[in-house]
Amino acid sequence: FNVSEINCVIETTDAMKEVLNRDVPRVPTLRGVTIASIFYEASTRTRAAFDLAARALGADIINLTAKNSSAEKGESLLDTARTIKAVGANIIIVRHPLAGAPYLIADQVKCNVINAGDGAHAHPTQALIDLYTLQSSIGNLSGKKVLIVGDILHSRVARSNIWGLSIMGAKITVCAPGTLLPSGLRGEQGKEKPQKSLPHIEIETDLDSAIEGADAIIALRIQKERQKSNLLPSLREYIKLHQINNERLKRASPNAVVMHPGPLNEGVEIAPEIVSGERSMIDQQVANGVAVRMAILYLLLK
Amino acid sequence: FNVSEINCVIETTDAMKEVLNRDVPRVPTLRGVTIASIFYEASTRTRAAFDLAARALGADIINLTAKNSSAEKGESLLDTARTIKAVGANIIIVRHPLAGAPYLIADQVKCNVINAGDGAHAHPTQALIDLYTLQSSIGNLSGKKVLIVGDILHSRVARSNIWGLSIMGAKITVCAPGTLLPSGLRGEQGKEKPQKSLPHIEIETDLDSAIEGADAIIALRIQKERQKSNLLPSLREYIKLHQINNERLKRASPNAVVMHPGPLNEGVEIAPEIVSGERSMIDQQVANGVAVRMAILYLLLK
Amino acid sequence: FNVSEINCVIETTDAMKEVLNRDVPRVPTLRGVTIASIFYEASTRTRAAFDLAARALGADIINLTAKNSSAEKGESLLDTARTIKAVGANIIIVRHPLAGAPYLIADQVKCNVINAGDGAHAHPTQALIDLYTLQSSIGNLSGKKVLIVGDILHSRVARSNIWGLSIMGAKITVCAPGTLLPSGLRGEQGKEKPQKSLPHIEIETDLDSAIEGADAIIALRIQKERQKSNLLPSLREYIKLHQINNERLKRASPNAVVMHPGPLNEGVEIAPEIVSGERSMIDQQVANGVAVRMAILYLLLK
Repeated sequence: FNVSEINCVIETTDAMKEVLNRDVPRVPTLRGVTIASIFYEASTRTRAAFDLAARALGADIINLTAKNSSAEKGESLLDTARTIKAVGANIIIVRHPLAGAPYLIADQVKCNVINAGDGAHAHPTQALIDLYTLQSSIGNLSGKKVLIVGDILHSRVARSNIWGLSIMGAKITVCAPGTLLPSGLRGEQGKEKPQKSLPHIEIETDLDSAIEGADAIIALRIQKERQKSNLLPSLREYIKLHQINNERLKRASPNAVVMHPGPLNEGVEIAPEIVSGERSMIDQQVANGVAVRMAILYLLLK
Repeated sequence: FNVSEINCVIETTDAMKEVLNRDVPRVPTLRGVTIASIFYEASTRTRAAFDLAARALGADIINLTAKNSSAEKGESLLDTARTIKAVGANIIIVRHPLAGAPYLIADQVKCNVINAGDGAHAHPTQALIDLYTLQSSIGNLSGKKVLIVGDILHSRVARSNIWGLSIMGAKITVCAPGTLLPSGLRGEQGKEKPQKSLPHIEIETDLDSAIEGADAIIALRIQKERQKSNLLPSLREYIKLHQINNERLKRASPNAVVMHPGPLNEGVEIAPEIVSGERSMIDQQVANGVAVRMAILYLLLK
Repeated sequence: FNVSEINCVIETTDAMKEVLNRDVPRVPTLRGVTIASIFYEASTRTRAAFDLAARALGADIINLTAKNSSAEKGESLLDTARTIKAVGANIIIVRHPLAGAPYLIADQVKCNVINAGDGAHAHPTQALIDLYTLQSSIGNLSGKKVLIVGDILHSRVARSNIWGLSIMGAKITVCAPGTLLPSGLRGEQGKEKPQKSLPHIEIETDLDSAIEGADAIIALRIQKERQKSNLLPSLREYIKLHQINNERLKRASPNAVVMHPGPLNEGVEIAPEIVSGERSMIDQQVANGVAVRMAILYLLLK
């Protein structure tokens, strides 16, 4: 994906939003197309958004979950994907706990694959949603300061957003306790040599200074399980130092927006007053999720 | 719901039954509408009936179960509902093990919510089905004796039926072993002061006397697990004293009908000869389940 | 099923393949029809194929899995099926771990039932797919040598294929380690009297001799769990003696085709070079799965 490809997704999304605002938000564009979603991990919003995107375009969608499919019998991912393709699916949407799984399928099975999240690696459609939502609310992203706060280490959304935002020319700052920052990023500041392909990123552990002048803040889910693995001293500590709340938001740009890919831990990484506050773009992100995925399905097949 | 609202559902259901009797039982009335069902508890008939009701009206339905959704990641009910609404759902159908869950969603998320069963509290669409089925078979319910037999204490169907039947003017008798009667009801007979809002109900523990002259009998499922909690001495005892069978049915009104909301424990609360007998309305209840839910979906949106 | 009935399925399947090859592979033939699938066992290809077959014909399909339905509450199979019928389903597709379950439903519930696999007993739609795929690739089956290799003892596919192939006049050879052959079959060779209704089958334990001159080879999945029950000495031994690989395929007829009902254990019962080799009909089997099931749904209702 380069700038013009991302812009193409954004423009197509605009057209799809127009469809969704109709009285009967359905078009027959992809009638006769079969889309299969295979989710090896739980999901509400991603699965529901792809489901509705497919239906809004007139396509049929079949949902497989690892629990009810032959994956239970030990069928391999590739064999499942080959089967799905042979059955007649035109697109396979995959969420898998292992990084790279969708690429393996695309490479070996030779079919249209959409990565709906692979391990801690990437969640590209979420990044496109975030780019679209940001651009709709704060305009052209070039030179804008975007702060990503939270569990950067384990977040596929963070990885995909860093990739997308840097292509679009945003200035990216990430902020987290040191234990939740990937070592590759930290290397940039310290003794390790940075990877060439990595975009330039400001790294902060102090949120009060990181948020200064931010045009947009993306808060990430803190998984309570991280505490067990000693990556978080305590939730109380995290809330005190890294929660996005009204007090902290005052340091950001006056028109700054707050986003969160969900699912939320309200009161942990984000204060309830922010979630339902006027700066929150969280519902728009979810709503845009359908339109962006319609655009992706459309562009993949047309 | 008052009498005229219930009658409105009943009349709309008649129109929906006409649709279902067509060669192609589909109308495009709700085309473009998205209905989401979130079931946090197992269900066959309720989920299937809503599913078919939605399709018969041309709506799209997305099914989420707690097991494959982000509820597994600890997402809160409200966050899930907010997401579902933001994705574009026009109606959310919820079944939840906690009483009040659907009301919480309706209150906080501001969307159309249908309660498909919440804990031991209520199952209003089942009550509407039972009212419709009763009225179709024994006519106007005013003054008719309706007997509800079984685990009144844990039954959301009993609660909703008592509410609906009393609005429609039926004389209600409940019958169960004393351990399976809620204490609020027992209070009416004894020393405790009855709650004002509670309709008048006859309470019996002896089925042979309770069934005398009944125009309709609603048998409720006995959960075998109740025995472990010492609420039931033994299934054998329950069958002997509280099973609806042909012998007992002779004491009821000659045209009495038998209903059961399912799932059945054949041979426990109800004898097999009754289930498939001519007085049984059980299959009609299930069949009416689709038409009543079509009426509810239609009335909620039009 | 007799020869002419099987030929009728095969001809109808040809018509359905024509539909599937259209730009918009959808026809409204079964519009307004409701098909319910109840899977008490995991499945990818069978469920997906029925799902797509139903949609391609314009029918609605509701999927129930044992895990989210009232089967969890201990509802009996018959009660579930009765409910599904009462809700309005025109066809019930059942997969169940117990042999005979679909027949019980058809007998007791009086509705259209399709057996999508019952225990180790039968998987008739898979057999029809295999007959169709074989006839498309090697022509009329009369007198052709078809070898079935693998876990004959536990395979419902083997049982159904033996039944279908013998009706069509094929010469059947089965090959497996002695522990994976049913005793009924072995009786034919030895002291026990063969059952009258059983078709004549050659039984071999040596694959190299069994494969000699075969026109088609059907490899069956080896379940690794069999080793625990001491039916298999070791996978290594099985691979050495009973795997279908290029070396062994040379002994078969020069135009021999290889089939496998899936899910595959690549590298166990079948070598990877065979799976993706030019003699493999495995993808065609899956693809034909949709067309054959369209034919079955169509013939059942029209």
